[in-house]
Amino acid sequence: MSNKFIHDNFLLENKYAEELFHNYSKNQPIIDYHNHLPPQQIAEDKTFANITDVWINGDHYKWRAMRTLGINERFITGDASDKDKFLSWAKTVPYAMRNPLYHWTHLELARYFDIYDLLNEKSAEKIWEETQDKLTSGDYSCRKLLQKVNAEYVCTTEDPIDNLQYHQQLAKSDYNVKVGTAFRPDKVILIDADGYNLYLDTLAEASEVTINSYDDLLTSLRKRIEYFNANGCRICDYGLAQIYFENYTESEIKSIFAKKREGNTISSEEALKFKSAILLFLCETYHEFGWVQQFHIGALRNNNARMHRLLGPDTGWDSIGDYPQAQNLSAFLNALDSKDKLTKTIIYNLNPADNEVMATMIGNFNDGSVKGKVQWGSGWWFQDQKEGMTKQLNTLSNMSLISCFIGMLTDSRSFLSFPRHEYFRRILCNLIGDEIKRGELPNEMEWIGKIVSDISYNNAKEYFKI
Amino acid sequence: MSNKFIHDNFLLENKYAEELFHNYSKNQPIIDYHNHLPPQQIAEDKTFANITDVWINGDHYKWRAMRTLGINERFITGDASDKDKFLSWAKTVPYAMRNPLYHWTHLELARYFDIYDLLNEKSAEKIWEETQDKLTSGDYSCRKLLQKVNAEYVCTTEDPIDNLQYHQQLAKSDYNVKVGTAFRPDKVILIDADGYNLYLDTLAEASEVTINSYDDLLTSLRKRIEYFNANGCRICDYGLAQIYFENYTESEIKSIFAKKREGNTISSEEALKFKSAILLFLCETYHEFGWVQQFHIGALRNNNARMHRLLGPDTGWDSIGDYPQAQNLSAFLNALDSKDKLTKTIIYNLNPADNEVMATMIGNFNDGSVKGKVQWGSGWWFQDQKEGMTKQLNTLSNMSLISCFIGMLTDSRSFLSFPRHEYFRRILCNLIGDEIKRGELPNEMEWIGKIVSDISYNNAKEYFKI
Amino acid sequence: MSNKFIHDNFLLENKYAEELFHNYSKNQPIIDYHNHLPPQQIAEDKTFANITDVWINGDHYKWRAMRTLGINERFITGDASDKDKFLSWAKTVPYAMRNPLYHWTHLELARYFDIYDLLNEKSAEKIWEETQDKLTSGDYSCRKLLQKVNAEYVCTTEDPIDNLQYHQQLAKSDYNVKVGTAFRPDKVILIDADGYNLYLDTLAEASEVTINSYDDLLTSLRKRIEYFNANGCRICDYGLAQIYFENYTESEIKSIFAKKREGNTISSEEALKFKSAILLFLCETYHEFGWVQQFHIGALRNNNARMHRLLGPDTGWDSIGDYPQAQNLSAFLNALDSKDKLTKTIIYNLNPADNEVMATMIGNFNDGSVKGKVQWGSGWWFQDQKEGMTKQLNTLSNMSLISCFIGMLTDSRSFLSFPRHEYFRRILCNLIGDEIKRGELPNEMEWIGKIVSDISYNNAKEYFKI
Repeated sequence: MSNKFIHDNFLLENKYAEELFHNYSKNQPIIDYHNHLPPQQIAEDKTFANITDVWINGDHYKWRAMRTLGINERFITGDASDKDKFLSWAKTVPYAMRNPLYHWTHLELARYFDIYDLLNEKSAEKIWEETQDKLTSGDYSCRKLLQKVNAEYVCTTEDPIDNLQYHQQLAKSDYNVKVGTAFRPDKVILIDADGYNLYLDTLAEASEVTINSYDDLLTSLRKRIEYFNANGCRICDYGLAQIYFENYTESEIKSIFAKKREGNTISSEEALKFKSAILLFLCETYHEFGWVQQFHIGALRNNNARMHRLLGPDTGWDSIGDYPQAQNLSAFLNALDSKDKLTKTIIYNLNPADNEVMATMIGNFNDGSVKGKVQWGSGWWFQDQKEGMTKQLNTLSNMSLISCFIGMLTDSRSFLSFPRHEYFRRILCNLIGDEIKRGELPNEMEWIGKIVSDISYNNAKEYFKI
Repeated sequence: MSNKFIHDNFLLENKYAEELFHNYSKNQPIIDYHNHLPPQQIAEDKTFANITDVWINGDHYKWRAMRTLGINERFITGDASDKDKFLSWAKTVPYAMRNPLYHWTHLELARYFDIYDLLNEKSAEKIWEETQDKLTSGDYSCRKLLQKVNAEYVCTTEDPIDNLQYHQQLAKSDYNVKVGTAFRPDKVILIDADGYNLYLDTLAEASEVTINSYDDLLTSLRKRIEYFNANGCRICDYGLAQIYFENYTESEIKSIFAKKREGNTISSEEALKFKSAILLFLCETYHEFGWVQQFHIGALRNNNARMHRLLGPDTGWDSIGDYPQAQNLSAFLNALDSKDKLTKTIIYNLNPADNEVMATMIGNFNDGSVKGKVQWGSGWWFQDQKEGMTKQLNTLSNMSLISCFIGMLTDSRSFLSFPRHEYFRRILCNLIGDEIKRGELPNEMEWIGKIVSDISYNNAKEYFKI
Repeated sequence: MSNKFIHDNFLLENKYAEELFHNYSKNQPIIDYHNHLPPQQIAEDKTFANITDVWINGDHYKWRAMRTLGINERFITGDASDKDKFLSWAKTVPYAMRNPLYHWTHLELARYFDIYDLLNEKSAEKIWEETQDKLTSGDYSCRKLLQKVNAEYVCTTEDPIDNLQYHQQLAKSDYNVKVGTAFRPDKVILIDADGYNLYLDTLAEASEVTINSYDDLLTSLRKRIEYFNANGCRICDYGLAQIYFENYTESEIKSIFAKKREGNTISSEEALKFKSAILLFLCETYHEFGWVQQFHIGALRNNNARMHRLLGPDTGWDSIGDYPQAQNLSAFLNALDSKDKLTKTIIYNLNPADNEVMATMIGNFNDGSVKGKVQWGSGWWFQDQKEGMTKQLNTLSNMSLISCFIGMLTDSRSFLSFPRHEYFRRILCNLIGDEIKRGELPNEMEWIGKIVSDISYNNAKEYFKI
């Protein structure tokens, strides 16, 4: 066992860490409260043709690594065969040493396929065959993949116009993994994006509300929120570079919206006012419904116009921004809190230079009403790796209470990404085990173990009322 | 001994660390050159009724932790009994694992009360009794608490209008801990704050100068500086989000001040000019008197308007800002240096993302005239924990000379917070001991020990001429 | 051997680290692809009078340390004797513990002079004598110093007006260390700096192009680029606070330049437009010639006006800025990429708060065309120390591929600074060895060793086509 790279005590460096992980964490079910899985594939219980289909297609983390190594786009997103794409990835893996992809790759091969060989050019052929046999065996459908990792709840992310048919289908089925949805209205907010009016037309249709005025828009949105709520939705999400918070009057917003809806151009100042208003409206409405709201802030997206034109968004051309975040975030949360309309909130930052701003911001609105009401989310995207998670865990511990933390989520498009929960738990247990060993925490396994299981599972279950 | 959580070698992980701490650091007296202790309580040698009175009331670090856990405000700052408040804190302590509060709590129980039990719901009753007995025994008055930790000098912080009567009373007494004062004129600077003119009226009274013009203001301030100086003051402090540095003319400032003093509204541009001018005036005057000036920059204060209304400032609703700092700080220090009016200066930043800016900024004005003339202060507020202090010590070492560092201060309102000096010293010794063990520093205990005692005590004594 | 501070396994903490360094790294030649060595001294094979001459004069890192300790400028850059300056430095060294200067000092004494004593006031006299004997022995000329450290290629930095006579002389000689040049046109860009028109006159002379119009300027620059290229130049560099990226029209730029060239003042907005235009022009031209371009961004220079007047630039009065970097850098690289005119690019940031922005930015333009086409450069200046390099290596690993990294450079003015390559290599090997020991990397020495030699040497050789 110990000759394997991925072995029982991978990342666990002493007996306290081992005890915490094996006794208090690893057997806890998974609550994956934010991801981008396609609900249709779960509903239809899709089976994958080969490992490229489930593992490489759509995975822009792997694509970026291959491009950095100098692999031609043909073998990444182009017309090369699935097998050739897999061989390109296999060739890249050894060069991805020290990147989270290296650990994820081998954890995923081990957990889903019971494969413990290191992936490289030499082992690629054998692993291609072995995974293909398994994937096509009937034991590797989407639903079975989620069961394999002991998922209890997964929450996908949908646009307000979504009819949620697959969630409805799943709710009626006897599938024992609960599949929730999160409302993500970014397209409603981004009034200065291309195609905004066309988008509103689809929203009008989905909500059966003609949208001519700002009031119509609010009516339409409220209907969609009600619809999502009736379908079990209790979570929502935003992906914004920064929180918008600009002064405005209702009449200004009405005329800005009308101007835009009539096809006119609006200024960046007007766009900012509109975004500030609609954001507050949405958050107040979520509070009314008792939803949890999430903010993913700080990304700098679509940097490479040439490749964006060829491949579209979310294909590996995004990076980390360095926007000021503290003042607007504070003013925005305060505006909601002042009206007693701040619902449970999770904030994720992409730039770790903002970690301490976030870790202390949450304390400004944790007022004793709910345990861990405002949360600083786990290391997101580029921070979703050992060092990023460790920094988040340490800063959260130093500046707030890690004991109240709701823990890990995948934020992933991939059915094979769930061992990231195990990865997180191992890192958490090792961090704490190390402190016990060094005498920075007392050797009180029972209550430290309790806190580990809370962070692994109980806190999220309680927070999301699952 | 070694079964205790707080034992002789707590945080000391090898023999070099132990030798450095026990032989060169722990017995050095404490110079606490910046804190917020109430001088009246020292002068009157107050005794505390119970541990809540001395330990929880007024401690917004503990309050924030309790609120995050979901404890009702009634048991924090409300009308619950002192005992119930202590029980709330006791219940919170295990959930504060990995937060500095966890270490501080047990260090303070050990050092002041000789209590080595872990505080939690189970031990709370016994610890309540034991501490109450001791606190009311006569051995735990304010003065005795300071003596218990071998304090040589403590420096409190006062507004320019303070009459310093308690400092005078203490100076005349035979108390062997020197109690200094630091001049903190924030209210004079913040011309756009509510109640500015009312504040000026009290300043006028304190200085016996009618304040109608900007020149009157300068005269008044100078008189207060002379008064503080005559009462032994040699240190001053500011708490500012950012350093102000805007171009202005004297006549502009005069008319801005007159406008405000006559009750008119001034623009934010005018406020900025005024703040820039008065800041330079003050700093030039400090230079004349040979004072040490301190800047605490980067806080984002009073974020929660609702709770601020209920509880006032400094009650746990502040966090870390992300303001640009480098350019204005450089221009400001340069303006003083260019006139040869830059006095000894200590800069503290709240956002650790600014650490490297600060660590290198000080080198721009360390011109060989005084050892460590411009200092980068020890980890402040949210940074006052093991990781925050370690980052500050490492970055200071890498980008300047740690050997010239004046070390630790509590910045605290609490008479029980002085073991933070011990905490700092253990961290410092462990950091250096670890490098000796790993061969990154030579095993030359004599001179490394000398530097450790310099940072623990001698450098501050020399810097502040105590 | 093991009693020496600088011993065979200095910084190598386990057998994997030792094996990686000794078998795969230490014997690789040095490619120092960016430094500020004076080519004249190499061409003329200068010999140094004493250790102050080669080691302290011109080294503003040491100067800053001495000034912080309180040493008078006379003994730093003033009229004290070389010997007294050396004694001042010797006295400072023990106070520089934990600063990179402490390690560099002893590595340099060991590698160049075979001296293993610790430098301090006691050992100073002996070391002064011993180094003087060696420096004047004929074995320590500039050329021999470079050979002593197994340099294969060094690249100095020149202004566009340079006639490259020393590089020509070296190219014709039989010296076996290749000496390249990098084109650094900062003075052409900084249209708002003092003496801009005078500089253009010298550029006109060097290029034999009368510069009256913006078109003339482009013609002149192109001629200088052709001249540098003909003399073997394949690398260029900028030192800018931020990347300029402002919209402009060609006709605007022409009239801005004409206005300035006629001696009129231009606005800061106009300067920004000009800088944006000339920067794009230069980068497009480099692409045409297939050069590698380097950007050093984020310094805050010349903070101390008084000392700048006395000593000039680059004398130790610079620090780290906190400018926003992400948006302009992205837009600028995208503008080049969109025209398919983005040449190989290396970006260095001075503020480590920007590390993650840089580590992810490069991935936006690594499109598979060249292995590691856009590089995030090794820890620069204040980051050129163990912690700074470690952070860069870890963040690069986590967010990109360290396997494609072109590794270390000195960026130094000193002939004795080359052991910084050894220092970097030891840190790299120890970091990786530690992960093998902890099971985070598999124990596959052959391919991990290959990657270590790639980072130490092969990647740079391939990238720069040396």
